[in-house]
Amino acid sequence: MIQLTLIQLDNYGPWTELLGEDRESDLQIMQADIYADLQRMFALRRGLVFFNRFDNMIAVSNGVSVKDHEMILRSVGRRYPVSISMGIGSAESPFDAQVLATKALQEIGSAQSETRKSIIAHRTNDNGEQEYVQIAHIDINGFTLRVTDRESAYQSTYVVYSSTAILMRMFADKGALLFFNGGDNFVSVCNGLKKSDFKEIFDRFETSMNLKLKAGIGFGRTALDALSRANEGLSLIREKKTDEVIILKEEML
Amino acid sequence: MIQLTLIQLDNYGPWTELLGEDRESDLQIMQADIYADLQRMFALRRGLVFFNRFDNMIAVSNGVSVKDHEMILRSVGRRYPVSISMGIGSAESPFDAQVLATKALQEIGSAQSETRKSIIAHRTNDNGEQEYVQIAHIDINGFTLRVTDRESAYQSTYVVYSSTAILMRMFADKGALLFFNGGDNFVSVCNGLKKSDFKEIFDRFETSMNLKLKAGIGFGRTALDALSRANEGLSLIREKKTDEVIILKEEML
Amino acid sequence: MIQLTLIQLDNYGPWTELLGEDRESDLQIMQADIYADLQRMFALRRGLVFFNRFDNMIAVSNGVSVKDHEMILRSVGRRYPVSISMGIGSAESPFDAQVLATKALQEIGSAQSETRKSIIAHRTNDNGEQEYVQIAHIDINGFTLRVTDRESAYQSTYVVYSSTAILMRMFADKGALLFFNGGDNFVSVCNGLKKSDFKEIFDRFETSMNLKLKAGIGFGRTALDALSRANEGLSLIREKKTDEVIILKEEML
Amino acid sequence: MIQLTLIQLDNYGPWTELLGEDRESDLQIMQADIYADLQRMFALRRGLVFFNRFDNMIAVSNGVSVKDHEMILRSVGRRYPVSISMGIGSAESPFDAQVLATKALQEIGSAQSETRKSIIAHRTNDNGEQEYVQIAHIDINGFTLRVTDRESAYQSTYVVYSSTAILMRMFADKGALLFFNGGDNFVSVCNGLKKSDFKEIFDRFETSMNLKLKAGIGFGRTALDALSRANEGLSLIREKKTDEVIILKEEML
Repeated sequence: MIQLTLIQLDNYGPWTELLGEDRESDLQIMQADIYADLQRMFALRRGLVFFNRFDNMIAVSNGVSVKDHEMILRSVGRRYPVSISMGIGSAESPFDAQVLATKALQEIGSAQSETRKSIIAHRTNDNGEQEYVQIAHIDINGFTLRVTDRESAYQSTYVVYSSTAILMRMFADKGALLFFNGGDNFVSVCNGLKKSDFKEIFDRFETSMNLKLKAGIGFGRTALDALSRANEGLSLIREKKTDEVIILKEEML
Repeated sequence: MIQLTLIQLDNYGPWTELLGEDRESDLQIMQADIYADLQRMFALRRGLVFFNRFDNMIAVSNGVSVKDHEMILRSVGRRYPVSISMGIGSAESPFDAQVLATKALQEIGSAQSETRKSIIAHRTNDNGEQEYVQIAHIDINGFTLRVTDRESAYQSTYVVYSSTAILMRMFADKGALLFFNGGDNFVSVCNGLKKSDFKEIFDRFETSMNLKLKAGIGFGRTALDALSRANEGLSLIREKKTDEVIILKEEML
Repeated sequence: MIQLTLIQLDNYGPWTELLGEDRESDLQIMQADIYADLQRMFALRRGLVFFNRFDNMIAVSNGVSVKDHEMILRSVGRRYPVSISMGIGSAESPFDAQVLATKALQEIGSAQSETRKSIIAHRTNDNGEQEYVQIAHIDINGFTLRVTDRESAYQSTYVVYSSTAILMRMFADKGALLFFNGGDNFVSVCNGLKKSDFKEIFDRFETSMNLKLKAGIGFGRTALDALSRANEGLSLIREKKTDEVIILKEEML
Repeated sequence: MIQLTLIQLDNYGPWTELLGEDRESDLQIMQADIYADLQRMFALRRGLVFFNRFDNMIAVSNGVSVKDHEMILRSVGRRYPVSISMGIGSAESPFDAQVLATKALQEIGSAQSETRKSIIAHRTNDNGEQEYVQIAHIDINGFTLRVTDRESAYQSTYVVYSSTAILMRMFADKGALLFFNGGDNFVSVCNGLKKSDFKEIFDRFETSMNLKLKAGIGFGRTALDALSRANEGLSLIREKKTDEVIILKEEML
């Protein structure tokens, strides 16, 4: 069982239209501020927020109680001119959990509803399974040397966004989620995936993009615990302390 | 002539490795803070910054002097544990301008150099042309109704990231740049493109993604001036005051 | 028993000297950012931070564990070019608690030590008493009407800073602490003070400043719980639902 | 002639009452965020903002045009749930300039008016004098060694706030302004004051507080230019390159 939270700015599109034509830089600043704020607040509860599309963010929220969600929602609503609503979903696979989180929110009202405001909704298909988080930290091998220092900045970004789209699909096919995390870094929320699943995805990715991936995979009761373990694994590869390109931290114990 | 600035965090990857395994949420907060900060500072000079990959940001910087760049670079360097370097490029097409900006920076040193720090480098292929900025604000028709309110959050994001990758390539083929700007919004820096170029791209996009795009296109001496005009155009379409799906603001005068 | 935390920027003065003459605005931004950050992180643990002198902040930290302190300290150290150290003190009176917190930190090294960095130190005179927080929210009667809307901005500020200095001394004489909180608002951390103590202070303040004060006083296991109760009391006075000028929330139950 | 801007949060007090009892930490975060934001935006125009009472801030705004003020006002209004209004005053003495700035704003409406919102008002007693800024950066001699490292944190703060109140009055008596700037630092906006004025104030301060002050004083067309020169002067004293305790940077030329 993993718990995911969909965080949606309430009626955001129509609101931005009210701000005048000169608004774009202010919107970008505010979106980044809200994301940083949410990250800070979820992180203190050992959760992790992905910026995703900025008006729709996704958090791994195991260990973050409903009361914590309410406190975070209220804090944002007080300090910004827009409010947020949240859908919380729990399921065995990360993909199913975000489906439930989305449905919970969609049932309450449209993202552009004028009346839906500061709502928290839940959905779970709880079957009594144990809660845990499995996370992989993935990057592209030698990206700085091979791409950033050689190609144009736009071309490098194109490689990363194309890679993101391809990986998003391949992970979803296995019930997992993949988020771009800046630079050439990806984080996959991947409860239930085996090392062989990663190997298969990485091989297919190499075939289509001619780039090699590496990954540390970690488990934990919370997102930050799992990601910390994943980072330990990735560091071993980066520091060439192993020949593997996929490290499941359990194996190292 | 358009002027673009590549903003690169100095030796960022290796630095993050020093922070301990538990670092990810702090990195995400800091990356968003630096982006918001840069946006705020460039915007006061009527420039516009795209978050791009967060460790590599791209700004449209017409009207932002080298001295302004230096002040911004120094302000970031004082308030964060990482410094930034900047490459400034000027060319007739946006694509060429970012190539020059990248080369200017690459010549000074690698993105992971331990010695390159707080540098500003320039490159121009100035042929005496007039400086101006052409920008398009693009979004997907009925995205909230058709996708956000209907599909899962992850699926919606997948549509947006796939669209970004496809559009990035199609705009680059015409010498322009395309950036994802949150939600279902894209901003294209597109000096030299005609309405017919947009029509062609939008038609091909609809064929491959089964989604319709609309755009306002504006011109100006600075990024924010151009984008404000673009927003005026897009508002006309959104408010159904025109049947066109591509508005060049000159036409409305 | 109340727990207070002294948060001190490490070797801050000498560090600022390295930044060049043009540094002041950047320092002011960074100081405000660090304070806002700390407030956000302590608040999630129901603590409260006072900006105090900005390079030395004081937090009411009942309920914030040493592990929480460490996480907060690490998060700041990663995202800013300066680090913080913390002294934690517990005592029966707020005044004694801050003395212990200060001593704990002073024993480790000077505020301008080049070697003291990211340290947490503790001191308690625990005698088994129950932990709780008593907080008063105080403001000046009719300040907007009588001062802000009538006097010059500087004169209004002078009234507030003079009031702060006078109140700081009077509360300290009773073992309590008083912090200026913006506007014409003061927050007193005042475990052990009775309503009669407030009455005495307010009468003496009126004599010397010719201004009347009002206060809500609350109790709780944490700073935010106590302050919420205090705000309930102050609201009753502001809304003229009571003739009292000092409300201890217990009385209302 | 110096230009000062009074920045006032519109109808702030009544608005905070709407947020629920649990609001204080969010208000503190937002106040610090708004201040940091304003500082960043004014600083790019070489202005300088003092946090003052947080709901009423004062900026030295020579060189910041009315159009710049409007852009800053709009940017804040878009990104926060509260708006700001501004009064701009120009006069020969800083004290008179803030009086005019305040009056300009007071005439438009009360700080707690429900209708006054996002207004900019001006007042000048322009007599054709040249615009310039004179600023002093002042600190207390050996404060870390003598006070911070020796006294309790609260006692140190009491010394600083008492000093602030005393200095505010003494500078106002000479037509100048004094702001607390964090730590043991004060900034005086002091057009027209001579070195002998500082000497007199510092002597009287030493008599009443038993603490010695030192100061660098600078001149410039803008606040940041003047403050940079002032910092050069103060650095000479701090590094013991002079026996003087008051350095007017002109003297060093």
